[in-house]
Amino acid sequence: MLLRIASLFLLAFWSLQCNAQAQSLPKNLILMIPDGFGPASLTMARDFQQATTGKMQLALDEFLVGNARTYASNSRVTDSAAGATAYSCGIKTYNGAIAVAPDGTPCATLFEAAKKRGLKTGVVVTTRITHATPAAFSSHVPRRANEDDIATQQIENSGMDLIFGGGGKYFIPKEAGGARADGRNLLLEAKRKGYALAGNLAEFHQLSKLPAIAVFAPDHMAYEVDRDPTKEPSLAEMTEKALQLLQKNNPKGFVLMVEGSRIDHAGHANDPAGHVHDILAYDAAVRKALEFARRDGQTLVVSVADHETGGMTLGRDGVYQWKPEALAKVKNSVDTLAALAKKPGADVVALLKEKTGITDLTEEEITTLKSEIAAAAPRFAFTLIHIVSKRSIIGWTTDGHSAVDVTVHAYGPGTYLFRGNHENAAVGQALAKAMRFDLKALTKTMFK
Amino acid sequence: MLLRIASLFLLAFWSLQCNAQAQSLPKNLILMIPDGFGPASLTMARDFQQATTGKMQLALDEFLVGNARTYASNSRVTDSAAGATAYSCGIKTYNGAIAVAPDGTPCATLFEAAKKRGLKTGVVVTTRITHATPAAFSSHVPRRANEDDIATQQIENSGMDLIFGGGGKYFIPKEAGGARADGRNLLLEAKRKGYALAGNLAEFHQLSKLPAIAVFAPDHMAYEVDRDPTKEPSLAEMTEKALQLLQKNNPKGFVLMVEGSRIDHAGHANDPAGHVHDILAYDAAVRKALEFARRDGQTLVVSVADHETGGMTLGRDGVYQWKPEALAKVKNSVDTLAALAKKPGADVVALLKEKTGITDLTEEEITTLKSEIAAAAPRFAFTLIHIVSKRSIIGWTTDGHSAVDVTVHAYGPGTYLFRGNHENAAVGQALAKAMRFDLKALTKTMFK
Repeated sequence: MLLRIASLFLLAFWSLQCNAQAQSLPKNLILMIPDGFGPASLTMARDFQQATTGKMQLALDEFLVGNARTYASNSRVTDSAAGATAYSCGIKTYNGAIAVAPDGTPCATLFEAAKKRGLKTGVVVTTRITHATPAAFSSHVPRRANEDDIATQQIENSGMDLIFGGGGKYFIPKEAGGARADGRNLLLEAKRKGYALAGNLAEFHQLSKLPAIAVFAPDHMAYEVDRDPTKEPSLAEMTEKALQLLQKNNPKGFVLMVEGSRIDHAGHANDPAGHVHDILAYDAAVRKALEFARRDGQTLVVSVADHETGGMTLGRDGVYQWKPEALAKVKNSVDTLAALAKKPGADVVALLKEKTGITDLTEEEITTLKSEIAAAAPRFAFTLIHIVSKRSIIGWTTDGHSAVDVTVHAYGPGTYLFRGNHENAAVGQALAKAMRFDLKALTKTMFK
Repeated sequence: MLLRIASLFLLAFWSLQCNAQAQSLPKNLILMIPDGFGPASLTMARDFQQATTGKMQLALDEFLVGNARTYASNSRVTDSAAGATAYSCGIKTYNGAIAVAPDGTPCATLFEAAKKRGLKTGVVVTTRITHATPAAFSSHVPRRANEDDIATQQIENSGMDLIFGGGGKYFIPKEAGGARADGRNLLLEAKRKGYALAGNLAEFHQLSKLPAIAVFAPDHMAYEVDRDPTKEPSLAEMTEKALQLLQKNNPKGFVLMVEGSRIDHAGHANDPAGHVHDILAYDAAVRKALEFARRDGQTLVVSVADHETGGMTLGRDGVYQWKPEALAKVKNSVDTLAALAKKPGADVVALLKEKTGITDLTEEEITTLKSEIAAAAPRFAFTLIHIVSKRSIIGWTTDGHSAVDVTVHAYGPGTYLFRGNHENAAVGQALAKAMRFDLKALTKTMFK
């Protein structure tokens, strides 16, 4: 009898403990979004890294747990606004919607729930801060193009403790070189509210407390492949700095959203070098987040893209190969290459040799390049970069997005919530659940 | 003191039990290979199912656990031979290699290890049985084109208990309408060895014991979209029958390989209807395997593709949408459509209206179709099917394979071995580990 009671006790204890081990939850959340990063982007970056450094493993490879369906409420192919709202609010909405439901009413975000409970919040991006992804965590507007409104809400309402990125122009009035029509200078207003401001790398390094804003460009920051490290920090440097500041004197925890923003822009431009270098810069930021989470033990790191961009494929035209070694010779983004090629007097053949390592241009390619430069053809950048893609045996099918499921990566307490195949909105709900946020209830309280 | 000892005991007990729970291993293995099934194929089939039936979940969605890297030892883009050898032997090898190492020496397979231990083995495919994927589990040849040799080894050496599929031609001499040069009739030899033979659906249904061979066509079985259910069974029917026969009077267990073979062929042909219907037929077979494993409790089911085919994307040309509703109107594979269109007197415009629901052909499309038919242009089938893909907003970049990581799905005891991102060879090694097979040692014993 005693034995039987003891064994029952043991069984109960064991099942409780196994459950507890599997289901502990985090204090901090680092949500990382590689914008426009499809399944082929993961293979591409790993193969490129292997070809250039010999290393077989990305940080992203260490914690892959599933994938996510990305469609929007009004299309099987999402945009970044609906894609980000799925994660910030845990709902499906229409393309263009920034943290509003299909009926246009605001939905409470992870950030709003975090502030309600006294946690700190922050965004680290390389686009304009008012771009769709960060906007969906820090504002509510019916159309993503309303960037004046987004900027106003980000400074007036969101209460974000940390904002690092490009794109100050919607914070500054037209008269002062910005893009705002209403004459307000939101950066000065933020300063008056107590934000520390940084506008260059030296000021960024000096930031030592929150709240803080660092803005490195009037528009997007540079593509990683073009970046001047004396002028702009890397995404990994911004992520590391953000984690230092958020951790400091902060007993309640934080929610940080880090976006590898321009992976997407390179996809839109069908630019394989821009794409792969921004992915590797993102992967380095992921590594910083993982290192933090491993030290800290109370932090959940989730990486999940909003959608794929470009319809990129490794291999094309019946060839059973692709060539990261050829891609490694490309020294600039297509934006920079096209601008250089269009300069008066530029020699496009010599330029491509110097900047992309291509020495086998066909007569037909040279003729097309030259005639498109002469005609100022809008397609010129695509013509040029498709010549580069062909040498690396990379295909593209669109300058927009595609519907393929994206990979989900999770590490730390709460990881079990992200295993398997999920709707993107369910990933958002799992993020809220991991942090014990009730976004539905909060939406009612705040907006109904 | 007593309390401390008791708590130490509890801790040890708990950690042992949690481990044991996570690490129990299977008696049976069902390895399912959707040939040429990329990440976009999963999204495609789910969206198509949702659009046509309202159901949001594929069988494959229920047990996704990670993804696999597919490159071969001599290329970043694998073929099906090297891809299948990664799973059958747990090694990376060169494109074209059927269960041989890069140096050409044979590598012991899961099937050889299974037979050694008295387990039953079988293959269920819809290609020729001598095609690369089933061949890599049941023969060793340096080049996949050696299908005479493959057939000989399959009947003479492999000891397979169950063979269901298409493609009897390499088992039958030229004189008898087959493809063998050596005059042997391997099917008759198999019969003499004790195999039950089925050559049509009625005989297939009558099969009641092992060993058994069912061959439904001289070459590949039909694409699912073209299949006549009175002539050929579905992949799900073959899988269900195989599991019944393998389970019967079998205390030691089995290893069954089921291939969704022609998903790949449709990818090569850039045929979206062929692709999606073969995926859904595969998913139905996966559901049969999962149902068996759930009842049985001792069976590991793993689904993993060998590679992606076609560079397929859902969305193209800048459109943020794709249309399974349009694809659902397509009633035949491109092979059938092109054959019908090329018949003397056929009206390609009327044919496309009837068989694909396309009523908005442009003048340019009609001119191209008609002139290619008249000229017997080899590209005609691609021209025709790209017109179909365009209506569904589906892109393709190749008639070959691409390098993207493929999804891995696992259910049952041993699932923990497959979580995360793995090399395809490591997936093969994990399959062996789950079954307690030592393929390295067996390779030495058998071949060195």
